Formats: sequence, structure tokens, C-alpha cells
Amino acid sequence: MNHPSAELSRFVAELSFDDIPESVLRRAEDFLLDCLASILAGSSSRPVQAIASFARTMGPAGGPSEDMVARRGSSPLFAALVNAASAHMVEQDDVHNGSVFHPAAVIFPPAIATAQALGRSGKELLVAAVAGYEAGIRIGEFLGRTHYTVFHTTGTAGTLAAAMTVGRLLNLNPAQMLHALGSAGTQAAGLWEFLRDGADSKQLHTAKAAADGLTAAWLASDGLTGASHILEGKQGLAAGMSQDADPARLTSELGSRWALVETSFKYHASCRHTHPAADALLAVMQKNKLEFNNIASVVAHVHQGAIDVLGPVVKPTSVHQSKFSMGTVLALIARHRHAGLPEFDAALHDAAIADFRDRVTMRLDPEIDAAYPKQWIGKVTVQTRQGQTLTGRVDVPKGDPGNTLTRPEIEEKALRLGCYRNAAAPEEVQSMIGKVWGLAECERVGNFL
Amino acid sequence: MNHPSAELSRFVAELSFDDIPESVLRRAEDFLLDCLASILAGSSSRPVQAIASFARTMGPAGGPSEDMVARRGSSPLFAALVNAASAHMVEQDDVHNGSVFHPAAVIFPPAIATAQALGRSGKELLVAAVAGYEAGIRIGEFLGRTHYTVFHTTGTAGTLAAAMTVGRLLNLNPAQMLHALGSAGTQAAGLWEFLRDGADSKQLHTAKAAADGLTAAWLASDGLTGASHILEGKQGLAAGMSQDADPARLTSELGSRWALVETSFKYHASCRHTHPAADALLAVMQKNKLEFNNIASVVAHVHQGAIDVLGPVVKPTSVHQSKFSMGTVLALIARHRHAGLPEFDAALHDAAIADFRDRVTMRLDPEIDAAYPKQWIGKVTVQTRQGQTLTGRVDVPKGDPGNTLTRPEIEEKALRLGCYRNAAAPEEVQSMIGKVWGLAECERVGNFL
Repeated sequence: MNHPSAELSRFVAELSFDDIPESVLRRAEDFLLDCLASILAGSSSRPVQAIASFARTMGPAGGPSEDMVARRGSSPLFAALVNAASAHMVEQDDVHNGSVFHPAAVIFPPAIATAQALGRSGKELLVAAVAGYEAGIRIGEFLGRTHYTVFHTTGTAGTLAAAMTVGRLLNLNPAQMLHALGSAGTQAAGLWEFLRDGADSKQLHTAKAAADGLTAAWLASDGLTGASHILEGKQGLAAGMSQDADPARLTSELGSRWALVETSFKYHASCRHTHPAADALLAVMQKNKLEFNNIASVVAHVHQGAIDVLGPVVKPTSVHQSKFSMGTVLALIARHRHAGLPEFDAALHDAAIADFRDRVTMRLDPEIDAAYPKQWIGKVTVQTRQGQTLTGRVDVPKGDPGNTLTRPEIEEKALRLGCYRNAAAPEEVQSMIGKVWGLAECERVGNFL
Repeated sequence: MNHPSAELSRFVAELSFDDIPESVLRRAEDFLLDCLASILAGSSSRPVQAIASFARTMGPAGGPSEDMVARRGSSPLFAALVNAASAHMVEQDDVHNGSVFHPAAVIFPPAIATAQALGRSGKELLVAAVAGYEAGIRIGEFLGRTHYTVFHTTGTAGTLAAAMTVGRLLNLNPAQMLHALGSAGTQAAGLWEFLRDGADSKQLHTAKAAADGLTAAWLASDGLTGASHILEGKQGLAAGMSQDADPARLTSELGSRWALVETSFKYHASCRHTHPAADALLAVMQKNKLEFNNIASVVAHVHQGAIDVLGPVVKPTSVHQSKFSMGTVLALIARHRHAGLPEFDAALHDAAIADFRDRVTMRLDPEIDAAYPKQWIGKVTVQTRQGQTLTGRVDVPKGDPGNTLTRPEIEEKALRLGCYRNAAAPEEVQSMIGKVWGLAECERVGNFL
């Protein structure tokens, strides 16, 4: 067995703690904390509560895995489902630019749930998560840009990433891991159509990617077989759902390039496609000492993917949808210098924000589009009320590896998210932070709350 | 709201018992019995047992819905998952030719599980099932032939059919039903790639279609929203997974044409694509009094879909895979005049069957391909050992509406399937048959075993 799907499965099955550089392990802990805090921040929202209620109706009354939304124990399947539903809710979890994929939301919830159920160590959890990032990011890159025009890569590639992660914790051998990959790939789903209505499907996508990937791995450990060429085969994932898939990306530099450390933190609480323009606007405002009321209009110069995802959102009707509105995001930046969760909550019915929003347009920029998705360049052109035309530019948005967050900044973000809408008390979040920083020494992964 | 997805959702939400012709209701009962018997026949198989074991690990210890594989109670989600995994296992459940979709396997398991949990009547179960058939078949037709080249329609359209069925039992209003459709469509998955390996994904597809559709409906009743144009939208199901989708098919003749009665019983225990040629071979053998040993070679003249699905299966390595081998099926017909479950079990390591199999070829036939999928014509050309060239033809294979099974034939098939490998005792199957024939008078759907 020596084809891309098999090679990737073997890498995941055979990766050991000692293979992974220190910097990768520390960054994995950073993303874990970022994910746990995101789960707390999303936990009170309506879509997440609906999924938690479904888990109560259909799942067991208790269990070894921590449902951080309902604050109760459940089976690994339902803990993964509910926590993953919440992890992406407030749009503050991490993102890998090159694959346009949010790894943490679909990798950590099933990893934690499985580790808790099987009594795995912190080191085993970290190895499994790193394996999931490396596989999932490469699968997202493999599926390419045409895939992302219709499919939500975090839902599709996320299902396979979750399966690889959980498969590692189940100690699947390379052949079993390939079966898990096959069963995950044939479940991969997630369409962007919901964006047009501002519907709740994004939460369903992360929830199901985590749960379905976990299902694939668990079934493989019990002997269920899957397609051996699910990614690159003639009737496989790419054949059905991509026009520019590149199998070489699946196994490129496995074990030498660590895709995990290319992953970005999200600084603004909005869709990642808005961040480069947001930072560019912040830069031009700071440089020229502009205020909210000085700005007549803004053109955000963007890549095609931003137009595909954000274009349908003209007049947001929910807080969640407003995070996909370029106009709303730039309005919040202009007014508050920050687009965080409380700012979005207050913005939805604010007439001045809506007025600013309607004066923002997006325009396809050839330079930005050519650099994307490897690099996310931000450019804006601002017309001032005084008749000036000003331009702003950032080459590396805040949170990207070249402009990353420090551990104190990560802790501060975790406290803000964890305490949002009183999801957790500050001391609970502090204790959670301590558990994450000490994870590598932990003999048996327990509850984080 | 007046677009195809909305119109279809409204039809499902508003269909009443009195709208449905008597003949449609009776045929729905026939397919229900056929499905229950198929669940029993598949219940001891390895892939089904793996999925049942997963349900035990992840689900509740008991519940109101009947898991007919493990013979225990569970929540609706897991009863639907496990029973649907088993319903398609032995390839004896029904099929709708025009949509190349197996409705019963993905519609009855979630319908029964939900009806049992909510204490619904037999009439309500029948209405929901009819609604699911009408919607699911039209969605399969809408997705078209290009979809089926890569995607397993029973997995994809099946997820939406299950959601519509369960949504009806949850009494969703038209708006909620549209949300259920949106949440189902964004989960729709299932790739043919597994056929190349003879892997177990077909069972995973039916299991997950049933469970994911049920999930979509249950979440909609709890307020989770979905895309309103999931089928025909710019980033919807057809945009991502079809090149010849026709939205007019979604709502064509709703309430006047009953697609359910176009559905066929499966007579041979093999993939439906083998049946026309099997019946044509039977016809030529009977007419010319040919025996197994008289036949030097057979050319099966087929539609392209048969080549797509059966072509990869050259040398079957499992009983299940042999049901997708045109050569094996024709060899069994030639020797036994019948290709049932025991015949397949005995065939896998039979050298004479393998030798015959290697003398069968498939050839694309323009007339058959043009008539497909509306009509499934069978033609074979047989070379005899005596040097004769003989041809056989059937225009309507056994089990199709024009050549259907009588209730005594359906009962006989149910007994054969239900008692296969001692899944149930004959008296249990007899009692089950009685419950199905009395369903319309039943106040509260209970266990069938």
C-alpha cells in the first residue's frame, strides 16, 4: 500500500511524541486553550443549546466524557458533538490560511472526549492532535480552491481530521487508520448555501465533522472497512467535490514541515476573510488619525474566496451573520478599533453601524487573489468626508504566524472568551489555563472544568 | 416562500392520510414488510454488528425504540442507525428505478424509531413514509445521472428523505420542514469509491442517512435553522454534486403522481443493475432449454450506470462484493435459476462459478442506455458450447411495477429473509407480517418483534 491515502494514514498511525518538535507541542497547547475558551464562549447560544438538547434526548444520561456546554458527562460521541458545535460558534477559534480550514474546532473536541473515555495521557492527546492537524490541513490543501467555493472545508476535511485524531488515540494500526480515513471521507459533507440565510449550519458542520470522524475511527477499531483510495480515487472525495485537487499535497513533507505552526489565531471575532481588510483599515486610521465620522466610504480589496463567502451577506439579520458582513466588521473597527464579541452583540440594531456598513464595498484584487490562500494580504481604499483618498495595507494580519499572539495575549483572550456571557467564572478559566499548560505532564486526561 | 425546496417541504408538512390513494397505502405496507425482513436478514453480518456495537458504546442502555439487530430498546437515533445499517445489507430491499434510490432502507428505520418513541399511530407512520418516498425519489431524480456516477444516491438523497419522514412524524410546520431539509442537505454524503475494495461503506451510508436525517428533523423541531435553498441554491447540493440537476423534478406532479408505486421489489439478492440481464438470461435459457454447462460465454448488454457501479468488481473477495459482480450473478442464474442469499453464500469459493464469471462481459447498449433510468431493459447474447449464438431480452424485470410481486410472494420472501441465518423464528416473522398488514388500524406503533 503505497499511495497518498495510505501514506498519510501510516504517518498518523506511527507518529510518536519524540518526533514532534517542542515548538509544535507548545503551539498545540496554545490552540487547545484557544479552543476550550471558544467552546465556553459559544455555549449559551441558541444553535449550540439545540444540539446539546438533542444530545440529552438521544444519548446516555452520563458518561466518561465532558460535555462542556451542558456541564455533564456523556459518551465520547455526544461530548464531541456538542463541544464541537460550540467551538466555532463565536468565530474566534484558529484557522489555517493555506487550507482555509479551522482545525481546532473539529480536532480537540473528539480528541478530548476519546482521551477522557480511554484514560489516555496528556502526551497521547497532544500527539493525536498534532497528527490531526497535519493530516487535516494537508487534506484541505489537497481539495483546493474549487472545493471551497461550494463546500465548507472545515466540515468536509474536518471529518477526516477528526477520524485521524481519534484513530491515533485508539491506537489504530496503519491498515485500520486507512479504513477510518475511508469511512470518514465517505461521510464528508458541508455546503456554504446556509450563509445566504444566516442559518445555523456552521455549528452543525463542526459538530458533525467531529462526531462523524469519531464514528469512523471507532468503527474501524471494531473492524468496519472503508475505501482505500477515498481521497484520490476515481469515485472518491476529490472526484466528486473538487476540480483542482492535487494528491501531492497530501503527503508533502510529512514529518519535516509542521503545518500546525502555520495556523493562525483569530484576533477579531469575525470570519477570517474579513481580517486582512480590518487590519488594513486599522493601519490607515492610526496612521492618519482618522475617526469613525471622518470616513465616507471604504473599498476592501479582497481575494475571490472572500467574495464567495461574504458576498451573499448584504444585510445581516443575526449577530452570527454580521460576522460575515465585511461592512459590519469594518464599521466596528472604525468605531471601536476592535471587533470583539460584545461589540458584535451591540452592533446588530445600531443605525450608525448599518449606515457605515452600506458604504463598504468589496472589490476583487489580482495581487491579493494570486497570493491567497498562502498569504492573506489586506488592502483598503478610504474616501474621507474631507475628500481625501487614503490607502492602507497589511501583509500579515494579526494572529498569523508572522504576527502571532504571545502566551499572555492567549491567556487574556481565553479569559475574555471563557467569561463571555458568564459561561465560566474567572477562576474556572484560570484553572483550565493551568491544566492546559501542564498537559504534557498529565498521566490521564480529566475534565477541564 | 415559493421555490422548489419550499414547495416540497410544504407538501410533506401538509400531506394527510385521506390524500393518499388506497393502492399507495397498501404498497407502502408491502415495502415496510420487505424492509423489516431485510433488516432481519442482514442482522448477523459483520458490518452491521460493528455498527450495533458502536451504538451500545455511545448510546443509552435502553429506550423506547426497537433496535431489531441487537434486540433491545434504544433512543430513536441509535435504533434508526442500526436498523438502517442492516436494511440494505443483503441487497434485497426495494429500489426506485428512475432515481436509482433505495427508499425503504433509509425511510422506515427512522420512521419506526420515531413513531415508537412518540407513540404515533400506524396511519401517521404510513403518511410519513409516503411523504418520505415522494420527496426522496424526486430529490434523487433532481440530482440526476451525473450525481450517481460518483455519489451513492441512497446515502445523499436518503438523508433528505429520512429528514422529511421524521419531520412529518414530529409534525413540523412547512417552515420547520424547510429547515430540516436544509440541515439534512448540508449533511448529505456517500461516495462509490468503496466498491473498488468491497468495503463496508454501503451499510455506513444507509445507517448515516437515516440517523443524519433524523437528526436534522429533530434539531429543526428544536429551532435549529437550515439553508432555505439547499437543493437548488448557488452553493447547494446540486451546485456541489451534480452537473445535470433539474429543479422541475422536485415538485413535478406532487399529489397526483405517486412515485412510491413506481418502486420495485428486488427479486434477486444482488445489485439492481444486474437484474435485467439476469432475467434476460433466465428467459433465453428457459426458451432454449439451456443448462449451465452448455454456456460458453455471455455478453450482458447494459446501461452506463451498470458499468460505473459493477465495472470495478472484477474478482469479488466477499459475499457482499459478489452481489456487484455481473459474472457471479449470471453464473448463479445459469446454475440455480435463482440468485438468492444461500446461493451467494455458497458461490464465493466455487471454482465453477468463478470460471463462468470470467466468461461474462458487459457491453454498453445504446437502446438500454437511452431508456434508463425510466426503464431497465435486459438483453444478453449467449454463445453455447455447441457454437450457437442466442439472444434473450426482458423489457420489465421481475419485481418492477409492471411485473410485481403478489402479497403471497411478498410474505414468502419475508419468511425467507426473516429466517435467514436464524435471525428470527418463523412464528416471529408470521407475527410481524400480521402487524404490518394491520398497521393502518394500530393506535400506537409498538415493537415489530
